[in-house]
Amino acid sequence: MHELVNGIVPTEAGEQERLIQVDDLGETVLRLYEAVGVPRADARLMADLQVETDVRGVHSHGTRAVPGYLKRIQTGHTNPKPEIRVVREGPASATVDGDGCLGHLASYRAMQLAIAKANDLGIAATTVINSRHYGAAACYATMALDWDMIGFCVSSSSRGVAPYGGIDRLLGNHALAYAIPADREYPIVLDMATGRSAWGRVGTMRLYGQKLDGEWVLDEDGQVTDDPGRAHALVAPGGTKGSGLNVVMDVLSGILPFGLATVNREDEYQGQRRASHFFQAIKVETFCDVSDFKREVDRMIQTIRASRPKEGVDRIYAPGEIEWLKKAAWEKTGIPLHKTHVESLEKAAEELGVEVAF
Amino acid sequence: MHELVNGIVPTEAGEQERLIQVDDLGETVLRLYEAVGVPRADARLMADLQVETDVRGVHSHGTRAVPGYLKRIQTGHTNPKPEIRVVREGPASATVDGDGCLGHLASYRAMQLAIAKANDLGIAATTVINSRHYGAAACYATMALDWDMIGFCVSSSSRGVAPYGGIDRLLGNHALAYAIPADREYPIVLDMATGRSAWGRVGTMRLYGQKLDGEWVLDEDGQVTDDPGRAHALVAPGGTKGSGLNVVMDVLSGILPFGLATVNREDEYQGQRRASHFFQAIKVETFCDVSDFKREVDRMIQTIRASRPKEGVDRIYAPGEIEWLKKAAWEKTGIPLHKTHVESLEKAAEELGVEVAF
Repeated sequence: MHELVNGIVPTEAGEQERLIQVDDLGETVLRLYEAVGVPRADARLMADLQVETDVRGVHSHGTRAVPGYLKRIQTGHTNPKPEIRVVREGPASATVDGDGCLGHLASYRAMQLAIAKANDLGIAATTVINSRHYGAAACYATMALDWDMIGFCVSSSSRGVAPYGGIDRLLGNHALAYAIPADREYPIVLDMATGRSAWGRVGTMRLYGQKLDGEWVLDEDGQVTDDPGRAHALVAPGGTKGSGLNVVMDVLSGILPFGLATVNREDEYQGQRRASHFFQAIKVETFCDVSDFKREVDRMIQTIRASRPKEGVDRIYAPGEIEWLKKAAWEKTGIPLHKTHVESLEKAAEELGVEVAF
Repeated sequence: MHELVNGIVPTEAGEQERLIQVDDLGETVLRLYEAVGVPRADARLMADLQVETDVRGVHSHGTRAVPGYLKRIQTGHTNPKPEIRVVREGPASATVDGDGCLGHLASYRAMQLAIAKANDLGIAATTVINSRHYGAAACYATMALDWDMIGFCVSSSSRGVAPYGGIDRLLGNHALAYAIPADREYPIVLDMATGRSAWGRVGTMRLYGQKLDGEWVLDEDGQVTDDPGRAHALVAPGGTKGSGLNVVMDVLSGILPFGLATVNREDEYQGQRRASHFFQAIKVETFCDVSDFKREVDRMIQTIRASRPKEGVDRIYAPGEIEWLKKAAWEKTGIPLHKTHVESLEKAAEELGVEVAF
């Protein structure tokens, strides 16, 4: 799945892929959302965020999710014309009610609020309730970068991860991200889920007919399996630590905003119905000189990059670096997308009477 | 090392151990710090925090560290009579200069400040510079619990962890903790380092002559080894995720407070000379009803506890639960400490002409 070879981003479509231009993909997604009743400005924002996610190589959370989102609007799960509003506010905090919106829309607004408040006070946090799947967490954390802030966000989840020592699919697979501004280097972006993998990535592996390398998932009997088709529960990465971090993220994303932990969300809340999220921004200038900070982040990245690699590893990458390299390459060449992914967009377009732009 | 058997905390001293009463241990530690010139109130706080760490079973960061701290005061590495002061302050932020103090002292003050500011604004963060080793991160994160706040803290570190894919001891082993208030259940406390283990724990394993179970450390050639005596670099838990989180924690604890990442701290900064830390408090009431929050945290813990365990696992514990169980038991019975640990305190007492109280 688009692994770099000697630091080079693959920019030709593989046998199972098609190369799609960024603007064409965005225009198509915009039309699709409009076709199910999403207002143009919201449809534009959705297209921007989801295409940005694809161009960073995180296809599981990019436009591959569009047909599912459209279906949820059509079935009434998601509200295409929500009244998104602030329902609770303090000097360094706010809660945004998404009114059943596409999660990206309320999340974008909540992160804007966190940034505005952090700009005044140095640090601020906001939450979102009554939302849906918010896609790639990096979309929101990276909004802080232009403001020389450290961004953080985390979302509630469907249940799908076994707690350390357990078998049951109890914990969430919370999508979280940190973004940290740099000077000449690409900003550090840690965009991850609290499970060993995103379920979407397990799906991608299945699409490509690949085996899971190492301890990713348990089958229904609690045994580790390398077959993505037999995945019952994801494991938490890093044993007790990853499992513990998962619990903390559930508190921030589920209990603090909405009073309901992901582990306690029964069927009616699965599929991220009534998702909730947490956003935070820290203004660097509050604590230190911004130029000094960014230069040291650069130096940190360079130190890590210079590490002696293990046998078989070409070099060490900083968190998010591979995604920035993909973005830089694919904005010019187009994005290699799996044919199944492209076809699902074409099928949705056909069903909605929309013309694809690629 | 004091593993629970069927949920029961072992309260008898093993063959290599002695049972030491909490008050006697505290009184001894107090006397030791006073003997090297630490003012009584500071010595008392150090004794309280380090004994609390022992009674929670985290001996690597409890009183076993005392002889080392004393030595560092005697050699001028640590300042016994620091002038700890706030050098930068905003409405929701502050930076505390520790003046070379025992890290616990400035950290306690900084967390108090974060709590006071979060009490006004809902969220606040503070940093500490010119500090030393701050011991167990849980000491500070848990201070937020009495205020119905979510506490968080993280420290700079000596270098000792290999970045994902690398061999070199570049990353820190940042001690971080989250603390989350509960109702009738014990609060959630995630107290961990960003490496696979604390170096102190590797040391404890060596003391007890135990092998490391799984992928903990690399030897000098970058190969995984189960021998704690051959440990060259710790691995990051959870692969890219743990390695990425480590980098983020270095930014928060090193660059944001002090402008210097742990990965860039050369020899003069090793041994946590000029350590820096980050503290944060979130007031629950800012975002939701405190009673609802705490009841849902209880229910979350109970849901996780009820998970079907894997074969060979007696039951699932919430983060921090085992430590609370140990504290509850050992405050009554005394703490089983390794003889080498006790003897090192006795030896320090003898050298300083201090009478031990146990």
